[in-house]
Amino acid sequence: MSHDIRIVTESQLRAAIGLDLTAVDVIERAFAALATGDVIMPPILSMDMPDINAEVDVKTAYIPGFDGFAIKVSPGFFDNPTLGLASLNGLMILFSAKTGLVEAVFLDNGYLTDIRTAAAGAVAARHLAPSTVETAGVIGTGVQARIQIEAAHLVRPFTRVLVHGRDPERAATCARDLAETLGITAEVATDPAALVAQSQLVVTTTPSRTPVIKAEWLHPGLHITAMGSDQEGKNEIAPRALLNADLYVCDRVSQCETSGELEAALAAGLWTNGTPPELGQIIAGTATGRTSDDAVTICDLTGTGVQDTAIATHARQAMGDTGTTIRT
Amino acid sequence: MSHDIRIVTESQLRAAIGLDLTAVDVIERAFAALATGDVIMPPILSMDMPDINAEVDVKTAYIPGFDGFAIKVSPGFFDNPTLGLASLNGLMILFSAKTGLVEAVFLDNGYLTDIRTAAAGAVAARHLAPSTVETAGVIGTGVQARIQIEAAHLVRPFTRVLVHGRDPERAATCARDLAETLGITAEVATDPAALVAQSQLVVTTTPSRTPVIKAEWLHPGLHITAMGSDQEGKNEIAPRALLNADLYVCDRVSQCETSGELEAALAAGLWTNGTPPELGQIIAGTATGRTSDDAVTICDLTGTGVQDTAIATHARQAMGDTGTTIRT
Repeated sequence: MSHDIRIVTESQLRAAIGLDLTAVDVIERAFAALATGDVIMPPILSMDMPDINAEVDVKTAYIPGFDGFAIKVSPGFFDNPTLGLASLNGLMILFSAKTGLVEAVFLDNGYLTDIRTAAAGAVAARHLAPSTVETAGVIGTGVQARIQIEAAHLVRPFTRVLVHGRDPERAATCARDLAETLGITAEVATDPAALVAQSQLVVTTTPSRTPVIKAEWLHPGLHITAMGSDQEGKNEIAPRALLNADLYVCDRVSQCETSGELEAALAAGLWTNGTPPELGQIIAGTATGRTSDDAVTICDLTGTGVQDTAIATHARQAMGDTGTTIRT
Repeated sequence: MSHDIRIVTESQLRAAIGLDLTAVDVIERAFAALATGDVIMPPILSMDMPDINAEVDVKTAYIPGFDGFAIKVSPGFFDNPTLGLASLNGLMILFSAKTGLVEAVFLDNGYLTDIRTAAAGAVAARHLAPSTVETAGVIGTGVQARIQIEAAHLVRPFTRVLVHGRDPERAATCARDLAETLGITAEVATDPAALVAQSQLVVTTTPSRTPVIKAEWLHPGLHITAMGSDQEGKNEIAPRALLNADLYVCDRVSQCETSGELEAALAAGLWTNGTPPELGQIIAGTATGRTSDDAVTICDLTGTGVQDTAIATHARQAMGDTGTTIRT
């Protein structure tokens, strides 16, 4: 029996789907489903190809109640910049959860991942940041630094953002872009300690392997979302900070233990608080979130397959007739 | 930087690529590469969705020297027949091994898997069957029963084939199809013991969970390729037969231990012969194959990601300009 498959390019996706509250709500729903225990999310398939300085990851998840499930393939070819190409690209495939047939192929080069990752940051901010945020800070100056702040601004409309990066010029460009996009004050912070001190909401978006935030910088009324760590050995937050915070929340405990902030805290023997709650449990109300505006909270985002299934399902609906139809 | 991605449907693939000695040689080369130790083949990503009676598997492998690497997604939705749809479908994606960019999407519904699986059977027969085969036998009556025999015939041009299946009508249809396709004598064998007794080459293509071949049926000058087992619990050959054969060969030992014929032999505590050789080692000459025409050999095929990477690379070359070009 023939059926139609929609092929959609990155530029078509960019024209039709943006980072907005609809995307945030879709990702929030996916996290809530993850907390119910009915979601099936196998471990990530990861293939390292050291001889060509490359890797590829495959993620998937099945969320009962969603019409489809996605499989995301993310190659990272780290010598690509010498060829004038981006290091990261890849695609998402959406399958019908009823028949397993391919419904759509999103040749997105990671765009949908950018959106779903930023949307997860907004979900974390919505449920964990103090109710009022006047100043937000971001450590990092890349794509995620920009869209994490845009995403957080959807749920906490702060009037000022501070940007810290190792390269002051890139930090200045990032701040300028954010000021223009959001119409708010944006400044470069050369001292990350000062950035944290002045912010009620901080997002870290670095691939760092040594903490960029120290434990002694925590202050009442602070929320931190650490989204940079997604691999063994990466670490943005000093292990002691996880213990000193009033609440440390994982997107997925099993992933944070091996590739998130929890990894270093466990390795240092510092983590003695048992199993942390997951973001989905806080959304679902089965775990306690922030208890006062003075509390210190940290959310650790490693990236989950449920986000991919959720954003791909959302994209399929949002794309309407856009793209090329292949009849098989 | 924009680049072109080729989208190819099952019917386009069927028109351009068949089971021939070129395909067999490509798969042989992949097995040989697997034996060199430079191939990177991560464990299969497998997601069970019991509430909808479905599963999905993802396989991949990187073979140094091949231009690309494939990721294959194989959904199995076992309630599909009630909807008039095939249970198995899926696709293969070919990535450049130089840049990681998507080069082609093969919407093949498993066709390339059929070809590469049959080609592996031909490789096994080429290296392990007696030099002369007059009669071949097949247990099973589905697609693989047909094309495994077609594949074996490419390398051992037998003049007679025997077909055994639980359903005599399906066996008769399969025999008729094989007689027509190959122009040889084809007969239904109601007794599998008689089929084995008369054959020098036997292929088992069933999803059986209890052995369809008994140890006492082995006879001098016999080669068996068991390709049906690909999951925990499946078992086509009596465990003792593995021990009684002069040579038992795996496509991949780590897979045969958990989802091939070796699984049951290990579970029964019968297997005491150490690590079996792999087919690629025999091709590469680093392990000993059949030592005489009177020997009894068994080859256990569970299916490997290198076969997928090899067939997808082959398909990309063979397709020429066929398909739809998407410029990203």
